[in-house]
Amino acid sequence: MTIPSFFYDELLTRALKEDINYIDLTTDNLIPDEQISSAIFMAKETGVLCGIDIALRVLQLLDGNISCEILKCDGTALEKGDVIARVTGKTRALLKGERTALNLLQHLSGIAAATANCVKAVEGTNAYICDTRKTTPGLRMLEKYAVTVGGGKNHRFNLSDAALIKDNHIDAVGSIRLAVETLRKSIGHTVKIEVETRNLDELKEALESGADIIMLDNMNCETMQKAVTLTAGRVPLEASGKITLEKLRKIAETGVNFISIGALTHSVKALDISMKIK
Amino acid sequence: MTIPSFFYDELLTRALKEDINYIDLTTDNLIPDEQISSAIFMAKETGVLCGIDIALRVLQLLDGNISCEILKCDGTALEKGDVIARVTGKTRALLKGERTALNLLQHLSGIAAATANCVKAVEGTNAYICDTRKTTPGLRMLEKYAVTVGGGKNHRFNLSDAALIKDNHIDAVGSIRLAVETLRKSIGHTVKIEVETRNLDELKEALESGADIIMLDNMNCETMQKAVTLTAGRVPLEASGKITLEKLRKIAETGVNFISIGALTHSVKALDISMKIK
Amino acid sequence: MTIPSFFYDELLTRALKEDINYIDLTTDNLIPDEQISSAIFMAKETGVLCGIDIALRVLQLLDGNISCEILKCDGTALEKGDVIARVTGKTRALLKGERTALNLLQHLSGIAAATANCVKAVEGTNAYICDTRKTTPGLRMLEKYAVTVGGGKNHRFNLSDAALIKDNHIDAVGSIRLAVETLRKSIGHTVKIEVETRNLDELKEALESGADIIMLDNMNCETMQKAVTLTAGRVPLEASGKITLEKLRKIAETGVNFISIGALTHSVKALDISMKIK
Amino acid sequence: MTIPSFFYDELLTRALKEDINYIDLTTDNLIPDEQISSAIFMAKETGVLCGIDIALRVLQLLDGNISCEILKCDGTALEKGDVIARVTGKTRALLKGERTALNLLQHLSGIAAATANCVKAVEGTNAYICDTRKTTPGLRMLEKYAVTVGGGKNHRFNLSDAALIKDNHIDAVGSIRLAVETLRKSIGHTVKIEVETRNLDELKEALESGADIIMLDNMNCETMQKAVTLTAGRVPLEASGKITLEKLRKIAETGVNFISIGALTHSVKALDISMKIK
Amino acid sequence: MTIPSFFYDELLTRALKEDINYIDLTTDNLIPDEQISSAIFMAKETGVLCGIDIALRVLQLLDGNISCEILKCDGTALEKGDVIARVTGKTRALLKGERTALNLLQHLSGIAAATANCVKAVEGTNAYICDTRKTTPGLRMLEKYAVTVGGGKNHRFNLSDAALIKDNHIDAVGSIRLAVETLRKSIGHTVKIEVETRNLDELKEALESGADIIMLDNMNCETMQKAVTLTAGRVPLEASGKITLEKLRKIAETGVNFISIGALTHSVKALDISMKIK
Amino acid sequence: MTIPSFFYDELLTRALKEDINYIDLTTDNLIPDEQISSAIFMAKETGVLCGIDIALRVLQLLDGNISCEILKCDGTALEKGDVIARVTGKTRALLKGERTALNLLQHLSGIAAATANCVKAVEGTNAYICDTRKTTPGLRMLEKYAVTVGGGKNHRFNLSDAALIKDNHIDAVGSIRLAVETLRKSIGHTVKIEVETRNLDELKEALESGADIIMLDNMNCETMQKAVTLTAGRVPLEASGKITLEKLRKIAETGVNFISIGALTHSVKALDISMKIK
Repeated sequence: MTIPSFFYDELLTRALKEDINYIDLTTDNLIPDEQISSAIFMAKETGVLCGIDIALRVLQLLDGNISCEILKCDGTALEKGDVIARVTGKTRALLKGERTALNLLQHLSGIAAATANCVKAVEGTNAYICDTRKTTPGLRMLEKYAVTVGGGKNHRFNLSDAALIKDNHIDAVGSIRLAVETLRKSIGHTVKIEVETRNLDELKEALESGADIIMLDNMNCETMQKAVTLTAGRVPLEASGKITLEKLRKIAETGVNFISIGALTHSVKALDISMKIK
Repeated sequence: MTIPSFFYDELLTRALKEDINYIDLTTDNLIPDEQISSAIFMAKETGVLCGIDIALRVLQLLDGNISCEILKCDGTALEKGDVIARVTGKTRALLKGERTALNLLQHLSGIAAATANCVKAVEGTNAYICDTRKTTPGLRMLEKYAVTVGGGKNHRFNLSDAALIKDNHIDAVGSIRLAVETLRKSIGHTVKIEVETRNLDELKEALESGADIIMLDNMNCETMQKAVTLTAGRVPLEASGKITLEKLRKIAETGVNFISIGALTHSVKALDISMKIK
Repeated sequence: MTIPSFFYDELLTRALKEDINYIDLTTDNLIPDEQISSAIFMAKETGVLCGIDIALRVLQLLDGNISCEILKCDGTALEKGDVIARVTGKTRALLKGERTALNLLQHLSGIAAATANCVKAVEGTNAYICDTRKTTPGLRMLEKYAVTVGGGKNHRFNLSDAALIKDNHIDAVGSIRLAVETLRKSIGHTVKIEVETRNLDELKEALESGADIIMLDNMNCETMQKAVTLTAGRVPLEASGKITLEKLRKIAETGVNFISIGALTHSVKALDISMKIK
Repeated sequence: MTIPSFFYDELLTRALKEDINYIDLTTDNLIPDEQISSAIFMAKETGVLCGIDIALRVLQLLDGNISCEILKCDGTALEKGDVIARVTGKTRALLKGERTALNLLQHLSGIAAATANCVKAVEGTNAYICDTRKTTPGLRMLEKYAVTVGGGKNHRFNLSDAALIKDNHIDAVGSIRLAVETLRKSIGHTVKIEVETRNLDELKEALESGADIIMLDNMNCETMQKAVTLTAGRVPLEASGKITLEKLRKIAETGVNFISIGALTHSVKALDISMKIK
Repeated sequence: MTIPSFFYDELLTRALKEDINYIDLTTDNLIPDEQISSAIFMAKETGVLCGIDIALRVLQLLDGNISCEILKCDGTALEKGDVIARVTGKTRALLKGERTALNLLQHLSGIAAATANCVKAVEGTNAYICDTRKTTPGLRMLEKYAVTVGGGKNHRFNLSDAALIKDNHIDAVGSIRLAVETLRKSIGHTVKIEVETRNLDELKEALESGADIIMLDNMNCETMQKAVTLTAGRVPLEASGKITLEKLRKIAETGVNFISIGALTHSVKALDISMKIK
Repeated sequence: MTIPSFFYDELLTRALKEDINYIDLTTDNLIPDEQISSAIFMAKETGVLCGIDIALRVLQLLDGNISCEILKCDGTALEKGDVIARVTGKTRALLKGERTALNLLQHLSGIAAATANCVKAVEGTNAYICDTRKTTPGLRMLEKYAVTVGGGKNHRFNLSDAALIKDNHIDAVGSIRLAVETLRKSIGHTVKIEVETRNLDELKEALESGADIIMLDNMNCETMQKAVTLTAGRVPLEASGKITLEKLRKIAETGVNFISIGALTHSVKALDISMKIK
């Protein structure tokens, strides 16, 4: 993974303290401190792996001398029974870190797997799948990473790295054109401006205003197809709004360039992965 | 809500900084600083509300003078269209806090709603629904709160407030009896000991060992029913292991006292709640 | 020690920054950076050792290459003159870390020694010595650990891992029985309920209400003896309230099961341990 | 108190989270959220008050609307039964904050009371009582404050605000004179240099070297008296080393200017103060 | 200012603790706690104001009841003698916060003033002045804000909100074209790609590769002019590399669109502003 | 360097997160994770090196296995073209850490170089150059260190390690003499008292009051010379107030002992140092 561990160590220690608090009453009183065990991480269902370095880092924080062997790296398609990694270290560390490691691994793999399903559904079209800002507080960095691991693309990370003009902004300024013009004058040249539109009239106005990207918000497929024709490739079009796996293919076939899906990160189904100590 | 705000303010500011980073390029450049708006939080689907104080606290952190009126409090059954709260404050604060407020509100309400569904499924039986330690890193306090709002009960908060003897612990010590005895000698008198069992033989051993609670791990309903008969009310029994809404009623009818469900917190479906600015 | 260092590293670095602030004006200007010294930790009086790993960790934070040899581990009965550990590393690190290391080591050993004295005083009775929540802000984890090192047991770690019904709670609800019933309905099954009683009538009510533990608050020995007879082993009894070493034996001989002593942690006498650099 | 609350709020919230963790199972389930109570802080023994603002701040952090009336301010000599402060606010906040508030108040008042005893013991002599760096990790600021409240003076706060040359420093450089000279060249002009001496020869060398303060380490009273005569007021003399209340007067009468006492902060006896809720 | 105070409160409290540490020995011992004073912030030289809200927030953190009147807001051109703000509050708070408040105010106004000078120098041309990532660690948010207050524009905030391909990147991939293509496939659609070029050949390649912005790195004015002609407005051109106020006009007249200047933030001259207590 | 890394690691990780935020879009997508490169730090102009350990620590935080060779240590006079250090490690780590490492290195070296220039200007006189509290928020420790690397001395680190009586303090108390006396009674014996004076009358009063140091605030050289004569070496004199390199020699020749210069840290010109990756 490309993210140095100090970027998430604070999150991991917070999670470990949250889960252990003082001590593990059961483990610390029953397992001798010097006992060593091995354990494997194993997939219990089909999916896409994400977060194995992070899960192992959790264990390393509890036992600096743990040895780890990674058999599958992030992005691997998992089948039930696949062994993902082997670790050998203090039994206490394995038992105390198991829950925190799995909570992260299952969550991130759940995101990667869901993304991969969406990406597969649009295969052969021009559409990319991308995420939104509907992420779990405190986990955005990791959740956005999981989306890329699943083959998706990242929408903006936060409110300061791209502009997205919505109806409230337009109402405050008076028109899409005015909003884009005003913004262009104040923001830096490295920032793109996206405009949210709800119908073809707004789309036309957005096109004329010089928007860099146009979002088609909650439009039906027919309207989106017209939008694609109207736009004629001048700017990328992004479909948005309650998009489900079922509707995905049809949306992609309208010719839109990006489909952003909040559910990828706001309604995550944990992927079943276990850690077995031998 | 019973939790003073300083318990979660750190989480909220971390979430806001994660979502805003520097500034909201769009809002800060298009909306005048002094502009005031009102907004409502509205349910877009049926469910159970959880986290409205927290969502409003997010907005207050951005505008100390915001005024809030709560129309539905945590635990209320929501219908589509229900207005949950009204707020009036700086438009900029509303627009910048909207995403973070909703991310939390939808997540917690999703947990409360799912819990309520499970609680309803076991209505009339003796079984309580409870959560696990399979929570999102950094959110355990709030997620455990959401489970109680949905009518569920909390299993232990962390590894230091109750003991749970699993197979690895038993293997290390030699027998369930020895594990319970050893633990009893070292832990304080305010701590309960739960033993995880996989079959009726282990259950009998756990009963004889003086465990305070016995977990029936991944047993089928027939075995659980025998366990209930065998136990005869001496200690509470907890059913556990990949429990779905479908199987829930049948499990409850075996007579177990607690059913712990990881999916309540590890596979959350966000409840659809919107914030509309007028 | 069973606690991984990241659990207390934050405390140690805070303590070191508090003690050093910018630099050690004396040491950093007089001792060459490359100079290496050895030092020993030595007991200057009789007691029980606690915190040697933590004291050495303080030095390691200042010099990652320090070598340490532990001759006595936590829980060892110390005689004046006993050498506890030897360290070799940068003289600067030893001099700069000495105060912080000793402050912790002397404080924790003071607690362990005082606890051991109390434990010895009740030897042969059925009573266990235990701590309270009267700990030093920021040091609860380590102080509770020191109590166990001295042979005592831990009372609850915090307000969320066990319930303790006091008079204010009873007044608010109406009766002990009602308080226990109300609580039992809302708390999880892994939590015990203790009731504080001030006389035998309250004790009887607590027994009937199904409390898991009963505290005898500020009762004299005669009353406690009657309480023991009345209870007849049905639930553990905990003696509490201004208990001194002098009264301890007599209290234990009443037959109570636990004696909780605030002074173990709120009135600590540091154990005299020195660090000598050669 | 002169210290703005943001200097210690972090400590207080850390202490509250340590004591409450998630929720107060007993209070939050038995006491209605809206219930209001009054409480008083009352002295249960003779002593000196310290930390009442801090104790009240603890309660304010749990209930922003609490009203407080301070009847005795820091530094007041307390008699048993004295009412120190009255507060009115949410019963829940009072019950949840009580322990943390008292832990701090009793600890700081214990330090102030012990200091006042020492100050009284040297009344009429030229000697000042002062503290050391033997403080509780994380509490130095408050403990040093408590010493001044008790009538004592503060020795250096940390290793970077004054220089104190000890034997290890002297050994490294070669002589007291050389150590003082070397230091004087490198440190700033706002910093004083103190030299620790173990006999009159070292004292003479320290005097000649131009030290600003001289510490008489573990000397008997006879030697200290000679030291006072020898020094003839040229620099302040500080007596140090295992000083007890019993020996204090005699030491002060030797004519030394300062007597530093580690036990003021490393062996604190909590002052008995209670909080009664009505 | 558009940034809510919780975004920088952590920085301000860190700064105040750094400057005060324990107490203000002079002020806390000489000025009565209840004494109230008024003070004014006054310009001592010509410049542009930036950071007055932040400076006043510093004082508010020390005295919650301070009253402030802002006479000049951020962005105002200051003349020597201009009164910027009046405050009335505890004398102690004013004296203790003065240094920290001024350190920030003078630094940020220094940046705003220097930026305004650069902006003025290019007046009438098409060039915008913008900043770089050469900011002071910990102050980027405020320093980038100061640049906008001075009339400049912000280049990217950090490495994740825009891509900038430099020679090392090109070497690793093989060509500018390949680098742009590879990047375009992996980054999100809201991100712009800038390419750093050192000569006209590289510029041509960058143009053909579809870069969104092209940087002209350390080119002389003649080359830049050719670059402008070659580019013919297809993408914005950014001049960069040791740009001084002297050369600025000539560079702007080549027709480049943006001129990025590291010195705006890496070599700041504090603007002379004083706080006078009456 | 004498400061252990945990003293500034928090600053460095904050700076790295500020500069990278999520990922380095360019580097992480174009440079293979396993690619290794070497790089050198090279001086691009004449100056004094400061902060090389800190700059290398930045890179180590991104790649724990990086190898570093330091060719010039802090305090070395640099000529254009001097190679300061060589590093070999992951190309990604080098590219991602470059900016943060250089921002610190250039800033600290800029301070050291400016200080060295001032020190050189007073060579042969009795005057020392020293810093002030006019430092960058968050960087005081490192900036004060840089001043000593450049040959200067540190004035007080913060408001609690030395007393400095200014006109507001004098006004509050009534006279310099009263201020010094009052302070002497309350502060510890390790603290010096400096008095700020604006004319010879105040100087005389300060001398009589027993001040340890006297500041000559904004006096001209003629007055300062008289002050030196008047003082006759009884206490150190410190010249202060808008001191520039041009006036420095003349001021030093008046015979003052210390010259404190705010511009050393409040108006820093970054020293040009580059990092070249091969």
